[in-house]
Amino acid sequence: MEIPIIRDVLEESNLRAQENRALFDEHGVLVVNIMSSPGSGKTMLLQKTIPALKERGFSSAVIEGDITSTIDSERLQPLGIPVVQANTEPFGGDCHLGSHLVQAALKHLDLSAIDFLFIENIGNLVCPAEFYLGENRRVVVLSLPEGEDKPLKYPLMFRECDLCLLSKMDLAPHLEVDVELMKTNIRKTNGHIAVLPISAKTGEGLSEWIAWLLRARVGQS
Amino acid sequence: MEIPIIRDVLEESNLRAQENRALFDEHGVLVVNIMSSPGSGKTMLLQKTIPALKERGFSSAVIEGDITSTIDSERLQPLGIPVVQANTEPFGGDCHLGSHLVQAALKHLDLSAIDFLFIENIGNLVCPAEFYLGENRRVVVLSLPEGEDKPLKYPLMFRECDLCLLSKMDLAPHLEVDVELMKTNIRKTNGHIAVLPISAKTGEGLSEWIAWLLRARVGQS
Repeated sequence: MEIPIIRDVLEESNLRAQENRALFDEHGVLVVNIMSSPGSGKTMLLQKTIPALKERGFSSAVIEGDITSTIDSERLQPLGIPVVQANTEPFGGDCHLGSHLVQAALKHLDLSAIDFLFIENIGNLVCPAEFYLGENRRVVVLSLPEGEDKPLKYPLMFRECDLCLLSKMDLAPHLEVDVELMKTNIRKTNGHIAVLPISAKTGEGLSEWIAWLLRARVGQS
Repeated sequence: MEIPIIRDVLEESNLRAQENRALFDEHGVLVVNIMSSPGSGKTMLLQKTIPALKERGFSSAVIEGDITSTIDSERLQPLGIPVVQANTEPFGGDCHLGSHLVQAALKHLDLSAIDFLFIENIGNLVCPAEFYLGENRRVVVLSLPEGEDKPLKYPLMFRECDLCLLSKMDLAPHLEVDVELMKTNIRKTNGHIAVLPISAKTGEGLSEWIAWLLRARVGQS
């Protein structure tokens, strides 16, 4: 008789993520997990990104991760795209999205009609980096007011991501932040990460971000 | 024979916190646990607060919580006060300070020489709120660029705190943030919380913050 083994939480989590990924691959959806501290501008970025992709003929959907509330989903509703709110409050108030929640959210989406699926993770620069959801790409948004030292103090997030968007560039003249030092600190933490300064307000860097997304779709893996 | 019971983690954590608190009370130290998202300005606030307390004849010490690095401790070193860096990386990289780490840090401090002990928690608007360290007061710093909706999306932190400092008020003219709505959302989450707009840059609200600290010391409990 074989001994039953209870698999550890992370193993279970990765299995669910792999199932998610198989579904994404089957439907040719590019999935981007967007992570950051609270208030870095993830939702506003999506408000600008999704219409720009639509203009180029690509359809999007969003899984909105929050502990509680539907504030971000409501902000995205006017875009007329499928949005699923995934709240962790009924599941202990987890501070990050789990692959099981993404799996549950996928039941509400028709993946065959979607080119890009954005997963807006819970605002937290620590824990979300530890949980693979099945995504193709991981993006961290670091807003200028957060300061130059964040990559050195929260290195895992920057190590685990493919791209760092430096957001709220429009605030640069009003801050004593050294953008070059910020970039140096990001690259010190991860030599392979791409870094792109953006401002959803002025439009700075948005076309480069769209180009990055389209390249990711071509080189999908 | 009694059955040995392994106490749950939170119970162990609270026992350590109570031991910390007994030490604080014994020495008449007022302990303030400062929490926030990454980059809200906690360290800069301490850089302004501690000299202001010194001018009024009060001595301070700081326990600096970070996952990794000694960046914040180094920033405080010129103040010439006792600073202990508590890093969670050797303990699994926890995303919040635990009472056991505070207990370990206390071995490096002479509590009889301290009036105020500030615990700067790890930058995270979620998990630190769940762990009592033995402090007398809990303060959340919410910076203006983070947006009005944060209290509604991360309610536990705002429910658990005595005071919310609205930081980076100097940026208000450059942001589309509604400060009154921010205050309303904070008070909607916690009807008893005090709210104080501040700017470490311009000095706005700092004397009110110092007065709050001095009142907390008088009414210490």
